[in-house]
Amino acid sequence: MVKLRSSAYAWLLLLVSMPVLAGRSGEPVQPIQPPKEINLALADLGKKLYFDPRLSRSGFISCNSCHNLSMGGTDNLKTSIGDHWAQGPINAPTVLNSSLNIAQFWDGRAKDLKAQAGGPIANPGEMAFTHPLAVSTLETIPGYVREFALAFGDDTIDIDRVTSALAEFEKTLVTPDAPFDRWLLGDDAAVSDMALNGYRLFKESGCVGCHNGAALGGTSFQKMGVVEPYVTQNPSLGVAGLTGADADRFRFKVPTLRNIELTYPYFHDGEAQTLTEAVDVMGRLQLGRRFTAAENQSIVAFLKTLTGAQPAFILPQLPPSVDATPRPEPFQR
Amino acid sequence: MVKLRSSAYAWLLLLVSMPVLAGRSGEPVQPIQPPKEINLALADLGKKLYFDPRLSRSGFISCNSCHNLSMGGTDNLKTSIGDHWAQGPINAPTVLNSSLNIAQFWDGRAKDLKAQAGGPIANPGEMAFTHPLAVSTLETIPGYVREFALAFGDDTIDIDRVTSALAEFEKTLVTPDAPFDRWLLGDDAAVSDMALNGYRLFKESGCVGCHNGAALGGTSFQKMGVVEPYVTQNPSLGVAGLTGADADRFRFKVPTLRNIELTYPYFHDGEAQTLTEAVDVMGRLQLGRRFTAAENQSIVAFLKTLTGAQPAFILPQLPPSVDATPRPEPFQR
Repeated sequence: MVKLRSSAYAWLLLLVSMPVLAGRSGEPVQPIQPPKEINLALADLGKKLYFDPRLSRSGFISCNSCHNLSMGGTDNLKTSIGDHWAQGPINAPTVLNSSLNIAQFWDGRAKDLKAQAGGPIANPGEMAFTHPLAVSTLETIPGYVREFALAFGDDTIDIDRVTSALAEFEKTLVTPDAPFDRWLLGDDAAVSDMALNGYRLFKESGCVGCHNGAALGGTSFQKMGVVEPYVTQNPSLGVAGLTGADADRFRFKVPTLRNIELTYPYFHDGEAQTLTEAVDVMGRLQLGRRFTAAENQSIVAFLKTLTGAQPAFILPQLPPSVDATPRPEPFQR
Repeated sequence: MVKLRSSAYAWLLLLVSMPVLAGRSGEPVQPIQPPKEINLALADLGKKLYFDPRLSRSGFISCNSCHNLSMGGTDNLKTSIGDHWAQGPINAPTVLNSSLNIAQFWDGRAKDLKAQAGGPIANPGEMAFTHPLAVSTLETIPGYVREFALAFGDDTIDIDRVTSALAEFEKTLVTPDAPFDRWLLGDDAAVSDMALNGYRLFKESGCVGCHNGAALGGTSFQKMGVVEPYVTQNPSLGVAGLTGADADRFRFKVPTLRNIELTYPYFHDGEAQTLTEAVDVMGRLQLGRRFTAAENQSIVAFLKTLTGAQPAFILPQLPPSVDATPRPEPFQR
């Protein structure tokens, strides 16, 4: 009993001496939490599927092609390249921290990661495959059959299980331990004075109204162009594309600002090439505020403190096709 | 002194009790040796460059796109997909163990890995960039400038250094410890009787005449279609494309058989979809021998023992572009 008690005291002492783990109180931004309750077998299967171009008709495009985990979970292109070099209609949002979004895609048409994952596979301008063909390809691959059995208890493969595995892997793709998170957790030296000034300005000028929470975004839909209209050649209508309502025109999910230094170019059309430009446009169009060069610079310095620990895992090895596996014919129309 | 001596005896004893490390004597195939004398800073830089699509005009295609290290160092397509979905003229050879080749490309036109590495970057049907543009892109990226300085002693970036780094990384991509290597090193249980029968047949029927050494290939150029002509729609002429000599028509570098289970489809035109088909065609066209179904099966079983330990490393994180970095315009012609 004495031993137990002394160890309880030690624990209490440890708690008292630690930085504030719940975050500086009252801040509208919270540290990213590492994922909890990950099903490792499922996530490991999902990781392979994420890197597997056999989910595309061409055998060339995988999830990682456009949500590249070496590049902030994006392709760093204005809009993505799809099957037969199709020009995508919209900027590929980062997969990093996407589990924190209230819904997926810029217009929120998928309610969660699992619902999202099936979209690109069957989109003719992206992976250009069909769910039945993707599944029937996987079913021929003994390495996958074994992994589905391990993850699900039996070796049935269907699109529901494929997307469940992809979603489970994507849940692991959070990026904690950004300099700003270390500051939130009590390390005063983690960010520069300029970045802290930028954060204050970010709060005072209203950016934080939409870009708040752990992901600094991803939790609401807002109109692009509140004070001034947004002018673009990009045909995407945002939520109006789903509802047909004029009020929803250019209403998009607010993107996360996590890892924003890595996820250029910016906006749904990818037309803002730099953070300086993005901050300037957002200030003018959303807040009616022209940031001075110094203000803009401070906010950009703050935004650069939001780059967290990137996913670190061994490049997956994909189970090979066998004689019975259908072979892609990428040059057929 | 006594201690030293006893430890010398222990070493001798260990040597005597170990399997034959130099390989079973007299075999025409030797175990793959792990790489020696790797410059780690250079290889690490090369790994990033290998995964970096900013070496392509589109910003979409990296070395890993067609020599995918999740897929046996190939794209598993008949011929590769290049810029604007260009249809490549030839099957992408595996990058795995390519350091063991006497020369690079199917026709051997590059004398080594370094000479090869610059080819696809500037090939209009592959990465479609130019060496000066690739270099001037890298020069704007602070993360690369630092890594070049670390690897080379100063921060000059030029194509010679880029290809040196790529080649150094590729030197690490050897795949030791295949079941057949374990057998060669003395582990009798490492391969099945059927595979051993296949190996005997592989030697007796003459396959080993060209597919020998540590890589089972990669050390000579041979005519495709010795006994019977090879019929293909593929326009590649092999060495004749370089020399113009009729005798060199369809003379190609003998491909390695290492990891052949992963590097389907087969031949320079990728027209053999399965190992069974490849073994059959090779037997008939190169050796004038029709393998029975059972013989073919044994040889295929042997070939599948050549899959070694695949490259295992953390997915690299690429240093981000900055405001000054030129942005790719993948949809411009």
